[in-house]
Amino acid sequence: MSELIGRSVPRVEDERLLRGEGAYVDDLHPSGCSEAAFLRSPQAHARIVSIDVEEARSAPGVIAVLTGADLAGELEPMVFQIARVVPETVRASTGAVSRVHPMPAIPADRATYVGQPLAVVVAESRYLAEDALELIELELEPLPAVVDPEAALEPGAPLVEPEWEDNLALEYRYRRGDVDAAFEQAAVVVEEVFHSHRHVASPIETRGVVATVDPLDGTLAVSASTQTPHQLRDFLAGALRRAPETLRVRAPDVGGGFGPKGAIYPEDLVIPYLATRVGRPVKWIEDRSEHFAATTHGREQVHRIALAADADGRILAVRDSIVHNCGAYHTLGLVVPYNTLTHLIGPYDVPAVDVRLRAAITNTGVVAPYRGAGRPEAVFAMERAVTRLARAVGIDAAELRARNLIAPEAMPYATGMIYRDGTEQVYDSGDYPKLLARARALVEEEPWAERAAGRRVGVGYAAYVEGTGVGPFESAALTVLGGGRVRVATGASSQGQSHRTTLAQIAADALGVPFERIEVVGGDTAAIAAGFGTIASRSLVVAGNAVAKAAAELRAAVLDAAGSLLGAPPESLTLADGTIRPLDGDGPELPLADLAGALSPFNPRRPAGAPTELHAKAIFNPGPVTYAAGVHAAVVAVDPATGAVEILRYAVSHDCGRPVNPAIAEGQVLGGVMQGIGGALYEELVYDPDGQLRTGSFMDYLLPTAGEMPEIRLVHVDCPTPLNPLGVKGLGEGGAIGPPAAIANAVEDALADLGVVVRACPLTPDRVRALIRAGGGDGGATAGAGATEVAA
Amino acid sequence: MSELIGRSVPRVEDERLLRGEGAYVDDLHPSGCSEAAFLRSPQAHARIVSIDVEEARSAPGVIAVLTGADLAGELEPMVFQIARVVPETVRASTGAVSRVHPMPAIPADRATYVGQPLAVVVAESRYLAEDALELIELELEPLPAVVDPEAALEPGAPLVEPEWEDNLALEYRYRRGDVDAAFEQAAVVVEEVFHSHRHVASPIETRGVVATVDPLDGTLAVSASTQTPHQLRDFLAGALRRAPETLRVRAPDVGGGFGPKGAIYPEDLVIPYLATRVGRPVKWIEDRSEHFAATTHGREQVHRIALAADADGRILAVRDSIVHNCGAYHTLGLVVPYNTLTHLIGPYDVPAVDVRLRAAITNTGVVAPYRGAGRPEAVFAMERAVTRLARAVGIDAAELRARNLIAPEAMPYATGMIYRDGTEQVYDSGDYPKLLARARALVEEEPWAERAAGRRVGVGYAAYVEGTGVGPFESAALTVLGGGRVRVATGASSQGQSHRTTLAQIAADALGVPFERIEVVGGDTAAIAAGFGTIASRSLVVAGNAVAKAAAELRAAVLDAAGSLLGAPPESLTLADGTIRPLDGDGPELPLADLAGALSPFNPRRPAGAPTELHAKAIFNPGPVTYAAGVHAAVVAVDPATGAVEILRYAVSHDCGRPVNPAIAEGQVLGGVMQGIGGALYEELVYDPDGQLRTGSFMDYLLPTAGEMPEIRLVHVDCPTPLNPLGVKGLGEGGAIGPPAAIANAVEDALADLGVVVRACPLTPDRVRALIRAGGGDGGATAGAGATEVAA
Repeated sequence: MSELIGRSVPRVEDERLLRGEGAYVDDLHPSGCSEAAFLRSPQAHARIVSIDVEEARSAPGVIAVLTGADLAGELEPMVFQIARVVPETVRASTGAVSRVHPMPAIPADRATYVGQPLAVVVAESRYLAEDALELIELELEPLPAVVDPEAALEPGAPLVEPEWEDNLALEYRYRRGDVDAAFEQAAVVVEEVFHSHRHVASPIETRGVVATVDPLDGTLAVSASTQTPHQLRDFLAGALRRAPETLRVRAPDVGGGFGPKGAIYPEDLVIPYLATRVGRPVKWIEDRSEHFAATTHGREQVHRIALAADADGRILAVRDSIVHNCGAYHTLGLVVPYNTLTHLIGPYDVPAVDVRLRAAITNTGVVAPYRGAGRPEAVFAMERAVTRLARAVGIDAAELRARNLIAPEAMPYATGMIYRDGTEQVYDSGDYPKLLARARALVEEEPWAERAAGRRVGVGYAAYVEGTGVGPFESAALTVLGGGRVRVATGASSQGQSHRTTLAQIAADALGVPFERIEVVGGDTAAIAAGFGTIASRSLVVAGNAVAKAAAELRAAVLDAAGSLLGAPPESLTLADGTIRPLDGDGPELPLADLAGALSPFNPRRPAGAPTELHAKAIFNPGPVTYAAGVHAAVVAVDPATGAVEILRYAVSHDCGRPVNPAIAEGQVLGGVMQGIGGALYEELVYDPDGQLRTGSFMDYLLPTAGEMPEIRLVHVDCPTPLNPLGVKGLGEGGAIGPPAAIANAVEDALADLGVVVRACPLTPDRVRALIRAGGGDGGATAGAGATEVAA
Repeated sequence: MSELIGRSVPRVEDERLLRGEGAYVDDLHPSGCSEAAFLRSPQAHARIVSIDVEEARSAPGVIAVLTGADLAGELEPMVFQIARVVPETVRASTGAVSRVHPMPAIPADRATYVGQPLAVVVAESRYLAEDALELIELELEPLPAVVDPEAALEPGAPLVEPEWEDNLALEYRYRRGDVDAAFEQAAVVVEEVFHSHRHVASPIETRGVVATVDPLDGTLAVSASTQTPHQLRDFLAGALRRAPETLRVRAPDVGGGFGPKGAIYPEDLVIPYLATRVGRPVKWIEDRSEHFAATTHGREQVHRIALAADADGRILAVRDSIVHNCGAYHTLGLVVPYNTLTHLIGPYDVPAVDVRLRAAITNTGVVAPYRGAGRPEAVFAMERAVTRLARAVGIDAAELRARNLIAPEAMPYATGMIYRDGTEQVYDSGDYPKLLARARALVEEEPWAERAAGRRVGVGYAAYVEGTGVGPFESAALTVLGGGRVRVATGASSQGQSHRTTLAQIAADALGVPFERIEVVGGDTAAIAAGFGTIASRSLVVAGNAVAKAAAELRAAVLDAAGSLLGAPPESLTLADGTIRPLDGDGPELPLADLAGALSPFNPRRPAGAPTELHAKAIFNPGPVTYAAGVHAAVVAVDPATGAVEILRYAVSHDCGRPVNPAIAEGQVLGGVMQGIGGALYEELVYDPDGQLRTGSFMDYLLPTAGEMPEIRLVHVDCPTPLNPLGVKGLGEGGAIGPPAAIANAVEDALADLGVVVRACPLTPDRVRALIRAGGGDGGATAGAGATEVAA
């Protein structure tokens, strides 16, 4: 068997995309297609007094105008199946509060965030639909809004949901060890407030939905720029009260996902509903303004964290009080703060922990998983605190980390927490000291000429672990086609992750069929009935192993069928390079194409009882997640006069288990690092205290370009996991987890003598200058300028 | 198990169609769809001197204009897989001639029949395409044409195919027994020439093709008004050099097929090709004029038949010389004369037979299977000859038949011929004497008041057998859906045959699931990969048994899965009314819906090793065909003054094995009878001697309406076949086989004293008057006026 796993096979996806032959949802133009536009709330919190759509209804080209009142009897409020993400075992232990917050597709009575859809116009074109939007008379009565999550939890705060007595969506306290005693006995205590600020994912392609009803069989066909077509199908089946098989959801080419396209939105429900209601195809493509306001955001947490350590810098205890901002609805969002909790301590061996976690709803856009999904927030708090501790103890920050890392001999390492999949959190494999050593080597060997040239150079580290490959399952079906080709269908859906290449490598190896004869189909509920989708750094783990499992079953079926055709025991045969051969080399060869031909129902000499096709299907249930890990190191030069931060080098040592395609793995990590750098230095989504979105365009929200990309060095320290047959770990998110913490640590290191304490990102020039002006604090209990700025 | 098989469950198809919610191919309007129109040959035989399309290419709205020369390098000539219909064993024994005649999709050099496509225009609309057709300058050099099949076989006849030395497509001689001796020893010999004239099927819906390329995955999706979507897919895969799975062929609602929609046409190839070439969807809907000229025709044979009998009317030998008109190409057409051969002797026990069969190509439209497909031609010749024999012997025509029928005790009865499927022809079951007796009872009990009133009343019979349920195979796949519903997918494709009802009855019984929870999907290559289609009275036999087989496998899988879930041996359980129960009534019940839910990959307590879905797929290879049979009896009153024929009663006794849905079976028979009456009294497609089509519209080609429908009485004499598990025989064509012979016999009976001999249909008033004028012949060796008229 030619070993393809482990080789950097070039991406088969690229040629088509580079030729401009990609087909994104906006490239679909079904016959007689109408277009929709949404009227969106201009206020963060308001009672809907009236919506007069009469004039809009008679505007040129308008087909339908619907408000929340029109939909009230038609569409159920959207209740998201958080049970699938935060399991019963965890919810049962979350203490007093874990509230479900049904979201109306379009509300009839109250607007709860700026950008929330309040009415929809369907017209002959988007142009005419937008014109008609202008004719809708919307009367709103403003209600008090709450934006800051800590303020939302204060007594007397305006209520986002009037049926609740407060704004608390989730409260949970995790404790182990004797934290109070540890803090009492500690030689050193550091305490600080750290903010993770709000981002928006900004994929090149915004969201979009096109829905058509098939005139032949009534199938409602939905093409959406989604990460999870099967989940969208199942959701629509429930919301529209249809059998799932009467829906076909496809993700066409998707121009980036990063988490937000794994959520389900009002538009995902309203557009398909409209297609059935107006009797014509309906299309909606999110414009960039809508993306800023109405696509789920990422991050936004406040950590009040304290570390206790002995005189050698050994961490004795961690105490943290986390407040997470859910936005107006939490959809899948509760998984984010829960992820923060379970990843806070990361690679460190800490005997005592006390974390209080609270999540508040506010009158802001919905916060949901965004690349990293709670882990960058955890790492920013913990790794900043660890860096502060090193300074307080007076030893090198890397050295202090080395003293606290879990030893490889301690694997598997049980943290004592319950992971979101309901199982005990156990780190399955990894060599954290080696990861740290390799990252240090990538930055410390260099004398840094910039330093010699008098520039302020700083080095910062961030270490993390990441639970990857979460269940419940992924599916794969393999079918032998004419010419001995093999089609691999899977529920995993690609937004650029190279499934067509990596899954084909796995199938080719497991089957013994040349790579070129394997084709991979994902993102289509018609190609395979069950699927979960591409979220949470899971596809290679769950879909990869499902493909390997189905391929092994198909291989056995092939050898069985070949055996009965050749009159040989299957165990005497092998399949390699697409041909069945006797293991002992003594006997006829049978190309897979010929075997498929012999099994054709058209073959009159088809063996009795032969299978009707060479096909195998598998579900892979992953069991507990596997832990990827990494150490990031940033070397920056800071100009105190301008506040400019230049990344001189960015280094990553990473463990993704067994790499299937190293070049693709590196691409994933580099992309993640660059997105992390965006959050560290440029990107910030800002609401004003009334809940108005201040950064509603790329004029105000800075996205790094290729020009901002620094030198990034990457080294793999691969520890295959024993938890799945392929030994793989997920890596889609890892690159984005470390940069804010590593860069903040590096900037603080560069400015340490000025008394600067970095409490938040992005480290824009004016914020760096403000930090320098505010310098001289001790980084202790007082919340600094950075924190205030975030809420401002 | 509730026995649904045998019950007249109402058709589930009807409600949608009666509401006008059917979706036929012309109801499909894909985005940006262009429309095609064909330039068709105005001459029956001509050299193409030049086709100047320049002006047409620049006409308004024209997208492309292509001639045969443009396509020559692109599309292979269409070679039809007659091997699938006339097997090697038969072809090897057909003697000197069995020629394949490749058909160019659009010819570049020569036109060979009126209506043959010579160029195609693709434009923004059919209107603009037809306008552009007018601008094409076509220069043809006329060549001598041959129209009559016997003339085509004369030495020196114009050659339809210049590469052949004559026009003979097929020649075969079948002999058994000592025919010469039988004729020498015979007490009575009758000899006559009988013509079966040419028909056109005239379904309510003409043909049509819509082809689109899916922008998401490049799939070429073809919707066509076809009986055989899977065969069309496989044909297109070869002709367009694409993998079959990159094609999706669907038959939407189809408004009647009757055989011609089981053929594959130049337009079926050209329209999909154009969709890939012009980069836009392309649609072509056949207009009625095109249907007359360019859809395959049916019938057209000359039989010079002689019967030898003893003095008691026992048939000693049959001698026949058959000439069949293939039209310009024979596509699947060679199966028609071969069917004639193997059905000529029908239900009679005849010791000596000598049949010479020749098929000629001519400069006329293609003749291919049309409801009955060679059997009505055989029956018209044989049953007319048997009736002539009765008159010559001087005994009652029904009584003479009774003396010659194969006895039920002789079953299974081997004829000594090889059937088209390559197996020996063996009548598996049937009670022909009882069929005759029951038919007689339906017409002879009545004194016929019309006779007493002085009208000329005649009675005529026609007996036949029909090989039904031919292979090679049909497929079925059953899947348990949510709510315990079951989807049945099959390769059989409906044009009105009620598959959704009858196949659901079979599945419901075999599974133990309520009928209402079964849904049947056919006509879609995406629903099931392998399939053959609905032709040749086969679907209930081959698809019905495939469904029963897959259902039995699914039932076993359900009980297996339920057993492991309930901890009970599967053999201790049963499935009835959609619920799994212990056979002894002692233990919990498990609705199928709950079992499906328990196996869901989302169920964390899903049993290890459980199947990923409840699904079973089966191929049914039928082996030899099973023989349906019937006796038709017509009672007519003929007005010698006007020539008008009135059918006073039409009676059918029929054996379709075990009837699954008697009401649907009766509907099939009645529809067939009515189509047969059309050919007996009204319909005739006429070419003039130059090959011009004289009957190119419904002004000239009379189709009966509901108003012409007589009283039809039907009785079932059901002899289940031992050849398939369900015991069913096919019956889609049977009704159409008998009427021309039965009605001709009845008309001749009514006019017997006038010396009338009926040699051809339709028995229009002017032809009846001509027969009376020509009366006085003895019905012997001389070809009468009827025969001459047909060729005129």
